[in-house]
Amino acid sequence: MSEYIVKIDLDKPAYEQAGVHNRWHPDVPANASIKQNKSYKAECFDWTGGQVGNNDSADDIKYCDLSRIHYLSGPFFVEDCEPGDVLKVSIQDVQPLERQPWGYCGVFAKENGGGFLDKHYPKAAKAVFDFEGIYATSRHIPGVKFPGICHPGIIGVLPSHEVLAEWNSRETTLVQAHPHADFVMANLPNEHGAYAGINATEEQQKAVASYGARTIPGRPENGGNCDIKALTRGSTVYLPTYLPGGMLSLGDLHFSQGDGEISFCGAIEMAGCITFSVSVIKNGMRKLAMKSPMYLPSPVAPRFGPDRYLTFEGFSVDEEGNQLCLDTTVAYRQTCLRVIEYLRRYGYNDYQIYLLLSTAPIEGHIAGIVDVPNSCTTIGLPMDIFDFDISPEGEVVKKDMSNCAFAEDDLREGFAFTKEL
Amino acid sequence: MSEYIVKIDLDKPAYEQAGVHNRWHPDVPANASIKQNKSYKAECFDWTGGQVGNNDSADDIKYCDLSRIHYLSGPFFVEDCEPGDVLKVSIQDVQPLERQPWGYCGVFAKENGGGFLDKHYPKAAKAVFDFEGIYATSRHIPGVKFPGICHPGIIGVLPSHEVLAEWNSRETTLVQAHPHADFVMANLPNEHGAYAGINATEEQQKAVASYGARTIPGRPENGGNCDIKALTRGSTVYLPTYLPGGMLSLGDLHFSQGDGEISFCGAIEMAGCITFSVSVIKNGMRKLAMKSPMYLPSPVAPRFGPDRYLTFEGFSVDEEGNQLCLDTTVAYRQTCLRVIEYLRRYGYNDYQIYLLLSTAPIEGHIAGIVDVPNSCTTIGLPMDIFDFDISPEGEVVKKDMSNCAFAEDDLREGFAFTKEL
Amino acid sequence: MSEYIVKIDLDKPAYEQAGVHNRWHPDVPANASIKQNKSYKAECFDWTGGQVGNNDSADDIKYCDLSRIHYLSGPFFVEDCEPGDVLKVSIQDVQPLERQPWGYCGVFAKENGGGFLDKHYPKAAKAVFDFEGIYATSRHIPGVKFPGICHPGIIGVLPSHEVLAEWNSRETTLVQAHPHADFVMANLPNEHGAYAGINATEEQQKAVASYGARTIPGRPENGGNCDIKALTRGSTVYLPTYLPGGMLSLGDLHFSQGDGEISFCGAIEMAGCITFSVSVIKNGMRKLAMKSPMYLPSPVAPRFGPDRYLTFEGFSVDEEGNQLCLDTTVAYRQTCLRVIEYLRRYGYNDYQIYLLLSTAPIEGHIAGIVDVPNSCTTIGLPMDIFDFDISPEGEVVKKDMSNCAFAEDDLREGFAFTKEL
Amino acid sequence: MSEYIVKIDLDKPAYEQAGVHNRWHPDVPANASIKQNKSYKAECFDWTGGQVGNNDSADDIKYCDLSRIHYLSGPFFVEDCEPGDVLKVSIQDVQPLERQPWGYCGVFAKENGGGFLDKHYPKAAKAVFDFEGIYATSRHIPGVKFPGICHPGIIGVLPSHEVLAEWNSRETTLVQAHPHADFVMANLPNEHGAYAGINATEEQQKAVASYGARTIPGRPENGGNCDIKALTRGSTVYLPTYLPGGMLSLGDLHFSQGDGEISFCGAIEMAGCITFSVSVIKNGMRKLAMKSPMYLPSPVAPRFGPDRYLTFEGFSVDEEGNQLCLDTTVAYRQTCLRVIEYLRRYGYNDYQIYLLLSTAPIEGHIAGIVDVPNSCTTIGLPMDIFDFDISPEGEVVKKDMSNCAFAEDDLREGFAFTKEL
Repeated sequence: MSEYIVKIDLDKPAYEQAGVHNRWHPDVPANASIKQNKSYKAECFDWTGGQVGNNDSADDIKYCDLSRIHYLSGPFFVEDCEPGDVLKVSIQDVQPLERQPWGYCGVFAKENGGGFLDKHYPKAAKAVFDFEGIYATSRHIPGVKFPGICHPGIIGVLPSHEVLAEWNSRETTLVQAHPHADFVMANLPNEHGAYAGINATEEQQKAVASYGARTIPGRPENGGNCDIKALTRGSTVYLPTYLPGGMLSLGDLHFSQGDGEISFCGAIEMAGCITFSVSVIKNGMRKLAMKSPMYLPSPVAPRFGPDRYLTFEGFSVDEEGNQLCLDTTVAYRQTCLRVIEYLRRYGYNDYQIYLLLSTAPIEGHIAGIVDVPNSCTTIGLPMDIFDFDISPEGEVVKKDMSNCAFAEDDLREGFAFTKEL
Repeated sequence: MSEYIVKIDLDKPAYEQAGVHNRWHPDVPANASIKQNKSYKAECFDWTGGQVGNNDSADDIKYCDLSRIHYLSGPFFVEDCEPGDVLKVSIQDVQPLERQPWGYCGVFAKENGGGFLDKHYPKAAKAVFDFEGIYATSRHIPGVKFPGICHPGIIGVLPSHEVLAEWNSRETTLVQAHPHADFVMANLPNEHGAYAGINATEEQQKAVASYGARTIPGRPENGGNCDIKALTRGSTVYLPTYLPGGMLSLGDLHFSQGDGEISFCGAIEMAGCITFSVSVIKNGMRKLAMKSPMYLPSPVAPRFGPDRYLTFEGFSVDEEGNQLCLDTTVAYRQTCLRVIEYLRRYGYNDYQIYLLLSTAPIEGHIAGIVDVPNSCTTIGLPMDIFDFDISPEGEVVKKDMSNCAFAEDDLREGFAFTKEL
Repeated sequence: MSEYIVKIDLDKPAYEQAGVHNRWHPDVPANASIKQNKSYKAECFDWTGGQVGNNDSADDIKYCDLSRIHYLSGPFFVEDCEPGDVLKVSIQDVQPLERQPWGYCGVFAKENGGGFLDKHYPKAAKAVFDFEGIYATSRHIPGVKFPGICHPGIIGVLPSHEVLAEWNSRETTLVQAHPHADFVMANLPNEHGAYAGINATEEQQKAVASYGARTIPGRPENGGNCDIKALTRGSTVYLPTYLPGGMLSLGDLHFSQGDGEISFCGAIEMAGCITFSVSVIKNGMRKLAMKSPMYLPSPVAPRFGPDRYLTFEGFSVDEEGNQLCLDTTVAYRQTCLRVIEYLRRYGYNDYQIYLLLSTAPIEGHIAGIVDVPNSCTTIGLPMDIFDFDISPEGEVVKKDMSNCAFAEDDLREGFAFTKEL
Repeated sequence: MSEYIVKIDLDKPAYEQAGVHNRWHPDVPANASIKQNKSYKAECFDWTGGQVGNNDSADDIKYCDLSRIHYLSGPFFVEDCEPGDVLKVSIQDVQPLERQPWGYCGVFAKENGGGFLDKHYPKAAKAVFDFEGIYATSRHIPGVKFPGICHPGIIGVLPSHEVLAEWNSRETTLVQAHPHADFVMANLPNEHGAYAGINATEEQQKAVASYGARTIPGRPENGGNCDIKALTRGSTVYLPTYLPGGMLSLGDLHFSQGDGEISFCGAIEMAGCITFSVSVIKNGMRKLAMKSPMYLPSPVAPRFGPDRYLTFEGFSVDEEGNQLCLDTTVAYRQTCLRVIEYLRRYGYNDYQIYLLLSTAPIEGHIAGIVDVPNSCTTIGLPMDIFDFDISPEGEVVKKDMSNCAFAEDDLREGFAFTKEL
């Protein structure tokens, strides 16, 4: 029987609660000690700690405080785990909270967070999803229903001081090298909003706030915010460790997500509960030659027929026709745009499709990455999540697809929901 | 019953034979006219047109003439197909030739072709694979056997003059913008080795040789060398068209390939026969809002259990520890290196693993592509292709894994088969 | 958001509670009225209504009162459903109760219930399974862990008087035709233990008790106790209807089950909660030419690699060597025995394997059913549920596999746990 | 490279050719000696040895000589294989012959062979299938296309004298126990048509003809005609052996088949070529506790999405409403009839559907086999093999579906193509 180690109160601010923290730093104090091969349950906040509501306005997305995010459950001190060991985490289940059977996906405004397509879709938008058993539907994106592939967006361990110093150094170097970047290239430590947990001493809180790494990127050394949808119920993750007890933290639960999580707040974000157990592979980093996490996917996940994924190709030639050399990020962006152009024919606007690509279980593959100058990536779109026929042979009927939520002042000013490239 | 439209002679040079060509240009004359909804068989050369042999030296890789490659079968003039229509190609089968039941994979030398990891592995190498029914094994990479996911590396249509001009323009711009690049960023038209087909007039041959686009990259407008392993027997490809008759060409057959085709000549390259039929979606480019090809994968392909893919993560921090911003190509390279480090423990050297990652049905996914500054990509390695246990829990026994083939003068000079990063 | 329509109290007898009944009869009064396309949750008792405990004795199995079983949640009156319509039931989720995270499987004694192999294994036995997230393990069958494919063993509708009369007639005929049968061939109506629900009038209770059909068999007209493991979360069932409102009932939840449910109480039986919605296909029985239920399986279910199912063959030659003619039941029994003989080598006794075959997601297929005199059936045993290698090539080490639970007086008298055939 | 050990001539009678035989008897002389772990190719006749033609009449089915069937390729003497060893046969590929790219399925007349539904469909019928790559289509069953799951219907070893005596004894007992059976319950040895192979001495031929077991049924001891569609390319079969050299024979190739092979000549029967290799598990029968063959399915086979199988239920209540007790054969027959009733709505007649169920990759499962008195079996029908929508929600349009082939005198006399039950 699984023991609860974190319970959260959805009616109080996350930053006043026990069991959570929101920065990566070795001084975050352990929230609980856990044993090997025993099952635990930890409740987790949605990634914004409750800033986003079940309503029809994207104001909460537009004005979301991005310094107060990723309240992770943990860290958990694992008995008998020492630096250099590998933590094997069995993700036994991930469920929404019965007391909050809904989630949301947001497109962040270019000025606050942004996203993969923010050049074309700079405004904030939102879709709320309702959960009925394993399925999600959204009043903001009608005609679509899919089973969740629930997973933690973030699972990782606290860094050692050495690892943290490396992160801060290399990310600062990046930012300093691009003084005129028109977007945030990396989020450096930020005292505002930092939370070292309810048990942290003043000194710990201060250290964590000043130097603690932001949780936004996944990182090679500890995993973290990798947003890998395959880490669903039934999967197993192997994590390197750098501190006594391993110091495992997890959260940012997603009901579903497409490969790439393209709208930044791209999954169906939810508060929920994760059931897990851990064991330790002694000296595992050396034994497994491990520098970054690895995992085994679950035998249980939504699996449509292989021939039911309509698949789109994208190449490293950008929207203006510029040729880039093996730029796989550009190729994937092109692939997204191809899907938007295709689905727009049914009456969805671009923001709705953007939100859909972020949340539905699309499969994003690297196809060719060596044939200069073009990378080729693909997106497999499961046709069976639609309640109408989207196959190339099907008839196209443009329907009233309602709309997703936008911010009120944006709507007042007006902007194009759809953009022909 | 399928009708043969191309038969090849493996004992004569490809550039003297009917039915093939090796450049993309509107003036390549049709090699045959085909009807809709009728099944055809076309034999195809291996991508080098027979330059590589079933032997234990990589000399043929090292000195391969890269101007004489990609002898494509076609172009085929499709009845009732006009510019703007979409060609729907049903790939009914892809088989090796019974008279040549083997293939090969090569690592190209940094000076001649290169590859995804050429910074670390600059020397030419080769592995020959034997086919026994649906399975491939290699004396150069012992301990591994996998079923082929046979597919054409190249399937596409001839460009119009306008499309071709666009290609030449944007690729020339790229090359000119990087005058000091230390590798070939794009292969511009090259008269040497160009072949417009046996039926080409002198004028056609000259035009094709002078301005015909190289077949090396896939391109958004016509597909081409996309190296998408999902285009296997049973799949369906939708191609935009730009010329009367569509002018379909295909070739560069692969017995198997991993996502990314990382060693450039990365698949198990083979001569073979493709069975296919076509139909036409009139005015399809507009109807489907199509700018790039799309496809439906096959219901028939090797499919290991989802929990049998040991999956590795890689991030956009390069080998020297430099932080890049959402560089997915770097992230995928890191993922490859993580697999190499892992498999090296069993006795394989790095070149063998490099060849293995290129050929085995590894799954390369984009995980997160928005969490600045790190892209995260994953590679799923099917554990069941090995005849020993490679799971993290399995015992590691370093075995004698023989070696892949290298070039003789490289071996004489000496170089490291393995490189600790 | 799903609305609860049945909540149960695990601490009180099932036969005193609202929301449930245990016989098929048109006079069972509706327990609730439900709307189309709205999501409902119904808690369900385990099939024995709580007679079996989480302990190490099979006494509760041996002395189980089989007249007091199958307390089904329902019947539910569906708005706008009339006789001849088809009910389309979307099974949105099936979960164990958080307050009872365990289940059990029992071998019933030959004298009380029996089972598929009761000739060889006539004694009562039991295994208790603990649930940790999606996985089940049992202290009574060590070395095995598998993800549940949770489903209702029973889903069906109340019969009309005509249908009920047909059932009673044909089942009575069967029983009367075999006056000397050495086992119960059919369970005819039995007043003892009958329960028409808390709302039933005395008259209704009396009618239901006297003539109500037992819930033990599935039946072609209404489905019922089909024990189809594919009716798991995400599946859709189409049921014919015979009464106004359709009168849907469901229950007998299973955490997991193998094809055949061979030990009678063969699944991992559990109390739990089912989330579902319904819609109505007007005049569906005629439109769909429907005489028996049909269904669409779920896209979400445990799915091991196809080559990870070690598969056994059985034929219609019985244990004594007698040749039967196309007797598929005998063939399937032989197949079960083949698996028992195989797994016994690892230290399990026959009762443990019998319980395992009943509960684990084994795949039971009909292979050939026309080649006189032999039917051939197969059982695919997923190798990956074992924490040791059971492949034919693996080393066989006989281990201490503990034991399942038996009845105390049986143990006192002694009997063979294992029987060589 | 695979070596040919049997080549056949399609223009000469099978019973004059080398490499084949058609009875199970220890005296059939070896046709070739084969080594372990080497790949071989054996061509195989279609099961009738060429009696059935690619035409539009079922005369050849109606008058097929059933004593001259199952010309198996073999037996092959495996080096180092002794009685009691287990032969591990890797089925590396199964392909139709390029010189005969078609196959057929027949419904046998009740008087000559019969079939699973011969009570309702007593007339001979036939459908010819054309192969285009991996796909089969039939002019006799329009609207359907499916990828083949090619496999040998028969794979087995010669029996020892003891095993053969056991077969003859128990099958004779069965026949003698039912002197008034209205169908052939078992085919006892039959001199007519017996063929011990081109190398057989007169004495051997005589022994084989007199006592050799017919190949029609699969048998528990040696496998044989199991008609298991899972034995497709990429699968591995483990066979017990009874004679020195194992004496492996195989044939009766199928391009595709549904579970049950219900029309007797139920698969798409074809001449073809099988590629295979063998190895020996010394003393394997004892080590594996093996009484009947077992196998590992292939990782490569047609696999539609799980939710794309429309699944029908059938129970052990027969067409007249008689209740049987756990008669799984009756249950499966009912399931077949439910599919026929469903598909008939689209314009197919019953014989066409009967042929379709025999050949398409339908999945026949045992659901519940313990809930007296009803067995429940299911048939999953892949919806994606139809070029129209057969889902319960789809519109039903009755189309002209042409017809399958019948025998000319039957047509002249007239009979119902369709039978309402």
